[in-house]
Amino acid sequence: MSESLSKDLNLNALFIGDKAENGQIYKALLNELVDEHLGWRQNYMPQDMPIITPEEKSSASFEHTVNKTKDVLSEISARMRTHSVPWHNAGRYWGHMNSETLMPSLLAYNFAMLWNGNNVAYESSPATSQMEEEVGMEFAKLMSYKDGWGHIVADGSLANLEGLWYARNIKSLPLAMKEVTPELVAGKSDWELMNLSTEEIMNLLDSVPEKIDEIKAHSARSGKHLEKLGKWLVPQTKHYSWLKAADIIGIGLDQVIPVPVDHNYRMDINELEKIVRGLAAEKTPILGVVGVVGSTEEGAIDGIDKIVALRRVLEKDGIYFYLHVDAAYGGYGRAIFLDEDNNFIPFEDLKDVHYKYNVFTENKDYILEEVHSAYKAIEEAESVTIDPHKMGYVPYSAGGIVIKDIRMRDVISYFATYVFEKGADIPALLGAYILEGSKAGATAASVWAAHHVLPLNVTGYGKLMGASIEGAHRFYNFLNDLSFKVGDKEIEVHPLTYPDFNMVDYVFKEKGNDDLVAMNKLNHDVYDYSSYVKGSIYGNEFLTSHTDFAIPDYGNSPLQFVNQLGFSDEEWNRAGKVTVLRASVMTPYMNKEEHFEEYAEKIKAALQEKLEKIYADQLLASEAK
Amino acid sequence: MSESLSKDLNLNALFIGDKAENGQIYKALLNELVDEHLGWRQNYMPQDMPIITPEEKSSASFEHTVNKTKDVLSEISARMRTHSVPWHNAGRYWGHMNSETLMPSLLAYNFAMLWNGNNVAYESSPATSQMEEEVGMEFAKLMSYKDGWGHIVADGSLANLEGLWYARNIKSLPLAMKEVTPELVAGKSDWELMNLSTEEIMNLLDSVPEKIDEIKAHSARSGKHLEKLGKWLVPQTKHYSWLKAADIIGIGLDQVIPVPVDHNYRMDINELEKIVRGLAAEKTPILGVVGVVGSTEEGAIDGIDKIVALRRVLEKDGIYFYLHVDAAYGGYGRAIFLDEDNNFIPFEDLKDVHYKYNVFTENKDYILEEVHSAYKAIEEAESVTIDPHKMGYVPYSAGGIVIKDIRMRDVISYFATYVFEKGADIPALLGAYILEGSKAGATAASVWAAHHVLPLNVTGYGKLMGASIEGAHRFYNFLNDLSFKVGDKEIEVHPLTYPDFNMVDYVFKEKGNDDLVAMNKLNHDVYDYSSYVKGSIYGNEFLTSHTDFAIPDYGNSPLQFVNQLGFSDEEWNRAGKVTVLRASVMTPYMNKEEHFEEYAEKIKAALQEKLEKIYADQLLASEAK
Repeated sequence: MSESLSKDLNLNALFIGDKAENGQIYKALLNELVDEHLGWRQNYMPQDMPIITPEEKSSASFEHTVNKTKDVLSEISARMRTHSVPWHNAGRYWGHMNSETLMPSLLAYNFAMLWNGNNVAYESSPATSQMEEEVGMEFAKLMSYKDGWGHIVADGSLANLEGLWYARNIKSLPLAMKEVTPELVAGKSDWELMNLSTEEIMNLLDSVPEKIDEIKAHSARSGKHLEKLGKWLVPQTKHYSWLKAADIIGIGLDQVIPVPVDHNYRMDINELEKIVRGLAAEKTPILGVVGVVGSTEEGAIDGIDKIVALRRVLEKDGIYFYLHVDAAYGGYGRAIFLDEDNNFIPFEDLKDVHYKYNVFTENKDYILEEVHSAYKAIEEAESVTIDPHKMGYVPYSAGGIVIKDIRMRDVISYFATYVFEKGADIPALLGAYILEGSKAGATAASVWAAHHVLPLNVTGYGKLMGASIEGAHRFYNFLNDLSFKVGDKEIEVHPLTYPDFNMVDYVFKEKGNDDLVAMNKLNHDVYDYSSYVKGSIYGNEFLTSHTDFAIPDYGNSPLQFVNQLGFSDEEWNRAGKVTVLRASVMTPYMNKEEHFEEYAEKIKAALQEKLEKIYADQLLASEAK
Repeated sequence: MSESLSKDLNLNALFIGDKAENGQIYKALLNELVDEHLGWRQNYMPQDMPIITPEEKSSASFEHTVNKTKDVLSEISARMRTHSVPWHNAGRYWGHMNSETLMPSLLAYNFAMLWNGNNVAYESSPATSQMEEEVGMEFAKLMSYKDGWGHIVADGSLANLEGLWYARNIKSLPLAMKEVTPELVAGKSDWELMNLSTEEIMNLLDSVPEKIDEIKAHSARSGKHLEKLGKWLVPQTKHYSWLKAADIIGIGLDQVIPVPVDHNYRMDINELEKIVRGLAAEKTPILGVVGVVGSTEEGAIDGIDKIVALRRVLEKDGIYFYLHVDAAYGGYGRAIFLDEDNNFIPFEDLKDVHYKYNVFTENKDYILEEVHSAYKAIEEAESVTIDPHKMGYVPYSAGGIVIKDIRMRDVISYFATYVFEKGADIPALLGAYILEGSKAGATAASVWAAHHVLPLNVTGYGKLMGASIEGAHRFYNFLNDLSFKVGDKEIEVHPLTYPDFNMVDYVFKEKGNDDLVAMNKLNHDVYDYSSYVKGSIYGNEFLTSHTDFAIPDYGNSPLQFVNQLGFSDEEWNRAGKVTVLRASVMTPYMNKEEHFEEYAEKIKAALQEKLEKIYADQLLASEAK
């Protein structure tokens, strides 16, 4: 580790803590903020006398109502404490993409909520509308967009839907131009119109300001052209939100084409090229391609750079597609590649810069060059989904979207004229530029607080990403060496792939047992014993999540892994899937070796106990037969 | 008022209070809840030692980080206090649909947020997923749906979009059946298929369980049939969210038909019938009709009963349309019509029941019979939007949707098999049944707390609705008698319509001045002086909002009002609009006469001062010429 800087951010000061170590700090700040709010209420028109009098507060009905409130809160408290998942825990929760959330964000949300602003319109929330605009610009800077714009979305599925809405409406504009301003696209064939780049389309639109509304009225928003826009390509491991989005947006599921993934669960670029060229050969346009940065099940990072390079090659052949990057999960990861001045760090300097800013506790090469290149290339995509409530460590619901070219937002906007507040570059009615309507101003305060405590580069979020990634690598290495003895059985653990980011998938395998169906059952049993399925979560000493890689969704991508475990191709086809355990390593506490080692022992013991129960269950079940 | 019951809910115990009268109660409950959470953290695996040590907490970097957090929170606090709108105020805020929010909801949100559950999946949030399911069932009961289902949505625009998604996919099913299971719809013409009732469609689908997935795959979700589904009818005063929804869902703006409203700003049912019959005559199907319960600008309540009655008549002529009720604003109003056992109260008993439960402070007929009938008929609509963050007094973002027939949700669901948790009737993956993805469990806790302190009938929410409605009537009567003298000018105030619900629109008019453009300017000036436009909101003694009724959106609906003010038809056409001030009266404190009278004087004085400034400005401006 480089010399510790007293001006370094200390991540441990940003969370309430596994054992509520910072609970008193949280309470003190919370109470201060609440007092500031209460004082504000009291001092707006201090000449007005209180409506609620001491007499009323002493009345039976008042007391009854407060007691009823207390009863309801008690029930909520009991339910929350009984049925919640302890993902705040330092080293026992290795499951879903959840962890502690940032104390500044919790506090800002709690505080801003007392005013309950609605960011749908500037008038309803001057303070938090301004914060959302700033957050959007910070998103744009994070993606190295020079003329970008962004905003907060309720969640990543909606942000993806908004990305598809952009793609659909923009792609249809040349067809609308052909109807409204044919001179603008004179001499271009329909095929050429369907392969104009987004930039060309925006420039064309810009050149006829007086016709914009009419052109928009003839675009896909009218209900026309939808069937001419072509195919929407998503990785084969497609998240169901992409199917939902294609359904909702009206292009339909029949237009969604899955692109195979390779054995690292990244989009196979050769297959992508084949599909695109195949479609082009039959004159079917490509509406767009989705690259995923941080897949839900594997944390895999598609080669965005390779998709962009392919697009450049194809452009020479008159083929163009819109590129949306679904970085709902991995978006904040880009902070680890930005230096103090928010410039993208060349790969050869990365280790030094990370050392300088104490991004990792050990001076190791955790990050693959191909991952670095993929992140770099995001700056060439038209739009990106990024969720503060995932790797931003901000509480739900806080998703986000960023667009490369601020002019794009006029394509989906309502109202003919640009509605801006004087002085500020903030839409007076944000609701006219986005998919949603009313939205909590508190969310903007919450994300703003996070971004302002933790800058979106190596000095801030980069360190938090580093803690998570380093923890993931410790877990990966730990699993690599892990095995158990239960009776006369030997059970080994095998991680799936080297983590692109911070997700570690793994399986338990009984040595010498070549039955893949049995291995799947074993892993499902481990999950059952490591989740709410088997009784109290609060009493469970190790928690994880699971997923199935089944042939219909994954093709043969898992085959290499399955073969390496000793299963034959026939066995793979017989089982039809492999069940894996999945750890999205978001805990910020497992980066330090001494902490990890402490928990490694506890995890081992907990897993030993679970495996013994599973084999005892098996024995009972076979005896019962 | 009926004899005060000590077991009555006291609304004054449910809010922090205009002058933070209940601030200490809020803080005490908040701190208790935070302590309960901190204790839970400490006691999950108490054998684990804290990660964050006292040594670390004494380090310079830790202190630096806490200070940075404090700096950021200070800036947020300053911004919030400078630029927020005091709609918590008892009697000075008469503007947007905002007010205080319920203390139990704020507390439940703050508390549940510390766990940060995600209701997209049961596994991620067992406690709050259960609460959301219960809230959905409470919504259904509020609408008197016997086999209904509902859930929380981020906002009303999205809920409306989801309603349209339901309508689109359901309407397309018969066309899909014709392709997949032609025997099921044998002998039916395409026109008949497009006019099957939702119930008939659901029954048909139910009869071929093994074919459901295939039929769904051929429905509008595939991208097919969209152009065959016909027109979507919305009130002429259409909220822009309906245009956005038609755009996003792919049927397109060209399929949206505005239905004129009458001079009470309610849908004109004769016009509706004319449009429907006209379309049917040319064999254009009606995808659906939207009735609005509580319009954004007027609080108008469409005659849902009349729409339903018309639909019954049309059915005999082989015409059917899906009915969605947009009760985003007015939905909770239905609680005032449900008795203690949640039965809909006959109009003739309404006054007595309200007297018994102290719904109003005075035993008056505030509620029109036609409004009662409209609310009753909601039970016949296929789906309803209802927003807890509007008349539910729950903080943002909490919208909602309810469907009449729980089977409908399978039409938009993903995954072939029904994914339910054992024992509970809760989808394991709620995200597969709704438009959104990740969603805050805290929102469910927040709405659940409100519903459980305030039952959704006359004993709970009905009383809160009553306070708001009674306050609106006091304001309406006050404005009716109001006039000002500024120099030699006399300025009168005229409310727009008798309030259907709790919204009061009004105009200032200079007596004897027949210039409508000048009147519009006067009202816009009053707005400027009663909003953030003219300097500090915090120093402003009376706040309101405004809107324009312009001919393109409103046709001649405002003409009767404009004529009554003494303007000619020609003047109306010349001005092209009327600017009105708008008060969505959500304050729960203005129902009592003595409180209202106290503020009436203050409002009068504040308005006098504003008018004097406006006329002084005018004088200066005319002298400058």
